[in-house]
Amino acid sequence: MQDVSIVGIGMTPVGEHWELGLRELSQQAIQAALEDAGLRLQDVNALVVGNALGTYINNQSHVAALVADYAGLHGVEAFRVEAMDASGGVALRQGMQMIASGAAEVVLVVGVENVTDVVGAARHNALATALDAEFEAAHGVTPVAVAGMMMRRYMHEYGVALNQFEGFSINAHLNGSKNQNAMYRNKLKPGAFAAAPAVADPVTLFDSAPDADGACALVLTRTERAKDMIPVPVRVKSSAAATDTLAVHSREDVLFLRAANVAAGRAYQLAGIAPTDIHLLELHDAYTILTALQLEAIGFAERGRGWGLAVDNKIGLTGELPISTFGGLKARGNPLGATGVYQAAEVALQLRGTAGENQVPNARIGMALNLGGLGTTAVAHILERVD
Amino acid sequence: MQDVSIVGIGMTPVGEHWELGLRELSQQAIQAALEDAGLRLQDVNALVVGNALGTYINNQSHVAALVADYAGLHGVEAFRVEAMDASGGVALRQGMQMIASGAAEVVLVVGVENVTDVVGAARHNALATALDAEFEAAHGVTPVAVAGMMMRRYMHEYGVALNQFEGFSINAHLNGSKNQNAMYRNKLKPGAFAAAPAVADPVTLFDSAPDADGACALVLTRTERAKDMIPVPVRVKSSAAATDTLAVHSREDVLFLRAANVAAGRAYQLAGIAPTDIHLLELHDAYTILTALQLEAIGFAERGRGWGLAVDNKIGLTGELPISTFGGLKARGNPLGATGVYQAAEVALQLRGTAGENQVPNARIGMALNLGGLGTTAVAHILERVD
Repeated sequence: MQDVSIVGIGMTPVGEHWELGLRELSQQAIQAALEDAGLRLQDVNALVVGNALGTYINNQSHVAALVADYAGLHGVEAFRVEAMDASGGVALRQGMQMIASGAAEVVLVVGVENVTDVVGAARHNALATALDAEFEAAHGVTPVAVAGMMMRRYMHEYGVALNQFEGFSINAHLNGSKNQNAMYRNKLKPGAFAAAPAVADPVTLFDSAPDADGACALVLTRTERAKDMIPVPVRVKSSAAATDTLAVHSREDVLFLRAANVAAGRAYQLAGIAPTDIHLLELHDAYTILTALQLEAIGFAERGRGWGLAVDNKIGLTGELPISTFGGLKARGNPLGATGVYQAAEVALQLRGTAGENQVPNARIGMALNLGGLGTTAVAHILERVD
Repeated sequence: MQDVSIVGIGMTPVGEHWELGLRELSQQAIQAALEDAGLRLQDVNALVVGNALGTYINNQSHVAALVADYAGLHGVEAFRVEAMDASGGVALRQGMQMIASGAAEVVLVVGVENVTDVVGAARHNALATALDAEFEAAHGVTPVAVAGMMMRRYMHEYGVALNQFEGFSINAHLNGSKNQNAMYRNKLKPGAFAAAPAVADPVTLFDSAPDADGACALVLTRTERAKDMIPVPVRVKSSAAATDTLAVHSREDVLFLRAANVAAGRAYQLAGIAPTDIHLLELHDAYTILTALQLEAIGFAERGRGWGLAVDNKIGLTGELPISTFGGLKARGNPLGATGVYQAAEVALQLRGTAGENQVPNARIGMALNLGGLGTTAVAHILERVD
C-alpha cells in the first residue's frame, strides 16, 4: 500500500455564486490546486468528484465527466462519489485508494456544490433527500427538524441550556472573520445565538450552518514523490469511514454518533495515535448539537459534556483543541458535497503552516471528520506534516 | 497491489418492479450474492453502490447508507458512485481498488436502479441529466435523440441501411429469451427492427434498450483467499476507465468512441492480451449504433464496419465473438446504474461455466464494457476464470 500525500490545494470562496455553475467553480479550484502543486493538466491520471445534489438541483448527472471536460482534463478517468454532505470526505478517501493501490500516480480530488440557485421548497426538498425518502421525507421531515429533535433531547437528558452551545458558533464566526474564503465574516456577540429566530426549535439561525456554493480541489500523489515536489507535503496518516442507520429514529441511542465513533476510532488505530495527539480538528458543525455529539463520540469529551469545550473556551486557535479553524461549516459555509474537501484542505493549510491569521501554532497532526446526513456517514482523515 | 476476484454473484430479475424500491431490490441481490459466496453480513468490510438517478427519481440521496442499513450491514463503510449508466462499472472498479490497496478484505459491489415508477416527462428529464444541462438538455435534447443523430451520420458516412443493424437486436432478444432474469423474453423476427415505430429517427423501438429496475451484487475478495472459498473464482485480470467530452457535439469525430478506445486499450495492455483473446464481450448496447461504434473502437472491427459482425452472425453464443450473451441492455434491460454490475456478473457466470442455456462454450476470458451517456464515460473490465 502506497503512502499518500496532499501536494496541491485550491479553493473558491464559499458563498452564493449565482454567476457560476458546477463547471466554472470546479475549474477555478482545479487550476489553483495544480498551480499550487506545480503540475499540469496532463499530469493528472484520475479525477474524483464529491458532489451531493447536482442531479437534483442542477439537473446534471455525470458531473465528474463535466468537470473533467471543462477543466481540460481530456480523456482522464473521472467519476463522482456521493454520501450527501460526506461526499467530499468520501472523494478524498477514494482518491487516496487509487494511489494506494497503484492504479494512479496523480489524482485530483474535487468537491463541488452549487445549491443556492434554488430557494424555498425546492431547496428543502433537495436537502430532505438525505433522509429516508419513504419513512421520513415523505412525511415532511427535513434535516434541520431532526437536528432540532436531537438537540431538544440532549438538553433534556443532560440539563443543558440553549446558550451553553453558543461558544461553538462564536468561535466559528471569529475564525471565519479572518478567512477570506468564508461565507460569513461577521462576528457573533454573546447572547445573540439563543436570541436568534428559531429555524427548527431549539436550533436557531445562528446555530444552523448555511447551505452554500463552492469548490475545493486537492492534488494527491505518493508521499515518496511528494517530498521532491513541494516544500511541505501533508501526508494522509490514516483514513477510515463507517455508516450508521439512515434514520436517526432507528438508532438505539439517538445521542450517540456511532459512525463517527467507529470511523475516528479506526483512524486513531491505523495512525497509532490517541485523540490527545491531535493538534486541530475540523469537524462537521452543521448544527452545534452535532458538534457536541462528535466531540463526545470521538474521544474529546464524556457523554453529555461535549458542550463544555465551548464554555471552557478550549476550542479557539490557541486552545487545547482548536476546531472550525477557518470558520467551519457555520461561518465558512456548508457547500455540502464540497465540505469534506474544504475540511481536509484547511487542515492541510494548518499543517503546512500557511494558515495566516487562522494559524494554529505548531500544528503537526490534524483530523478532518466529515458527516453525511445526521451522522449517517462518517469519514475521518488524520493528516500529518511531512518534514 | 492485491489481485482481486469475484466470489459471489446475486441479481434480481430486470424489469418494472413497481412493488419494490431501492432498498428491497438491493437487499435481494445482496442476500443472493452472500449466499453464493458462502459469507455472512458481518464478513463484509465495505459496500460500494452504483446508482444513477436515485436522488432525482426516488428523492433519495445517500443511497449507499440506505442499502447498508436495510440489508443489515450495520456500521459498514458505504458510499455511492455515479457516472450515469456507467455507475455500475465504476462501482466494480472502486470496490476492486479498496481490496487492491489493502483497505478492505471483502467488498460488496451493488448496482441498483428504480426508475420505472415515473413515466413521461419526468423520466425524460431524468435521463436528460446525463447530457450537458446548460448546453444540451436545456434545449430539449435527450440521449436517444443524440443516438439518433449519431446513427444517421453513420448511415450517411458509410452507406449503411437501417436493417443492417437488426442482427444486434435479434441476437440480444434470442439470448434474452433464455434468461429468466431478462426483461424481454420475446424473439425478434427479421424485418421487425427497421419496421418498428421510430423513437428518435432512425432509432426504432426495437433498437433502443428499455429503462428498467433491478439490482445486481458482486462479492469481491483477494484472489489468494478466493481459491479456498468457492470452486471457480473469477479474477479481475484488468480494469481501466476513461472519459470523453460530455457533449457529443464537442468531439472532433462524433463516430469515434474515444473513451471506450482508451479504456479497453489500457485494459488489454494491463492484462497483456489482444482483442482476439477475448472469448465473450458484454458491451453497452443501449442502441445498436453504440454497439457498432464500440466494436470499432475496441479492436473488433474496422471503422465503419462494426455493423458487419451482426450481418455475418459472428456474435451468437457459438460465434467468434459472442456479445450480449444474456440479452444485453436491449433484452435483459438497462437498469442504468446497475447495468455495469449485471454485465460483469454475466461475464463471471460465463467464465464459471454456469450460464445454463446461455453458456458460451469454453469461455475463459471475457470483457465487460460499460458506458455512461453517449460514450462519455467508459469502464472496461477483463475477467478470467481461475482454475
